[in-house]
Amino acid sequence: LNRIKASGLKLRFCTNETQATREKFVKKLQGMGFDISMAEVTAPAPAACRILKERSLRPHLLVHNDLVPEFAEIDKANPNCVVIGDAAENFTYANLNEAFRVLIGMEKPVLISLGRGRYYKETDGLKLDVGAYMKALEYACDVQAEVVGKPAKMFFESALAEMGVPPQQAIMIGDDIVNDVGGAQRCGMRALQVRTGKYRPCDENHPHVKPDAYVNNLAEAVDIILQQL
Amino acid sequence: LNRIKASGLKLRFCTNETQATREKFVKKLQGMGFDISMAEVTAPAPAACRILKERSLRPHLLVHNDLVPEFAEIDKANPNCVVIGDAAENFTYANLNEAFRVLIGMEKPVLISLGRGRYYKETDGLKLDVGAYMKALEYACDVQAEVVGKPAKMFFESALAEMGVPPQQAIMIGDDIVNDVGGAQRCGMRALQVRTGKYRPCDENHPHVKPDAYVNNLAEAVDIILQQL
Repeated sequence: LNRIKASGLKLRFCTNETQATREKFVKKLQGMGFDISMAEVTAPAPAACRILKERSLRPHLLVHNDLVPEFAEIDKANPNCVVIGDAAENFTYANLNEAFRVLIGMEKPVLISLGRGRYYKETDGLKLDVGAYMKALEYACDVQAEVVGKPAKMFFESALAEMGVPPQQAIMIGDDIVNDVGGAQRCGMRALQVRTGKYRPCDENHPHVKPDAYVNNLAEAVDIILQQL
Repeated sequence: LNRIKASGLKLRFCTNETQATREKFVKKLQGMGFDISMAEVTAPAPAACRILKERSLRPHLLVHNDLVPEFAEIDKANPNCVVIGDAAENFTYANLNEAFRVLIGMEKPVLISLGRGRYYKETDGLKLDVGAYMKALEYACDVQAEVVGKPAKMFFESALAEMGVPPQQAIMIGDDIVNDVGGAQRCGMRALQVRTGKYRPCDENHPHVKPDAYVNNLAEAVDIILQQL
């Protein structure tokens, strides 16, 4: 990261993290030694807040407790949409029924989902991600959720807009073949897949997505990018 | 019902009830004055048990506590499939993750769903039905559930087989345009929709399903059927 920043290239961190505010997320990365500030992070909750404001939407929130502060400035009285994130322990039977009732009670239900992940791994095992609960509400209410976060095109576009960089001049580096690589490419960017983190060898046979290149780690990605300057 | 039985016509009750055993279900109807016995009821759980036995499947159950006795004789050790019903309060975050882990851990995940209902109404409000949770697991594991219960063709066929009646000679009477009327018709039966219970006037403009006739109540359905004898 330091080498990228020193080169003068513009940099943006795109995360689907919805279990914590950007502030917590940045502090965690800073604690690991990364030079990163909140202004450099594109995350689903702030992107959703922009949409809510633009469209005068008042959300009923089904999100993680730690994410609630991101919506502090949003009017939530008399809701006319539902925003769902990875609510984890908040995905109770009562809370799901409550979100469903709000949604089905609308003349034209609006469901905004912070990501469409299927599942993820934690130290105590695999967990269903927001995408699964999104599908449950979609089916029950016969609606299609609007997804905010990777791989949504709009999400990458807002990151590009914030940097003032056209997609052709941007490169995505990520470990997720669909959400990072596929999403960025559909937006007109090039994308490198790192062979770390979520990467699995079978990703290299993915039926639809092919990265512009593979790299063994982030340092190698930086090498390649700086060589092209 | 008494008039149907007196006429000598064969009769079968097809229910998607999965919150209680057939025994409880029958006792409830008997308490309301209906002449009905367990042997006359076709319900998803016993139908699922037949499938489990035929295919040597050992289920992990995500069902209502009151339904568990229906699976008493089924081997549940070392599960090689998941059976999901309307588990109601048992649809906890922990139980959903557990069912998901069992399913995703299989080489070829098998998910059997006792119905595909979207939601239903109780005295304290609308509740998400089994279909919503089925969709969540389907999406997370990239599988298609096998649905047991109305409107599945196999479910109606097993009811017909139990009576020994070909579909052309059978009539379904139901209040649900899709699950009762549509399901029975796809199986080759004729179907009457009663304008009681779940019936809503907009059902009469349903884009895909058209009953063979409407009746105002069960008694009127019996009148029509007995007149044709």
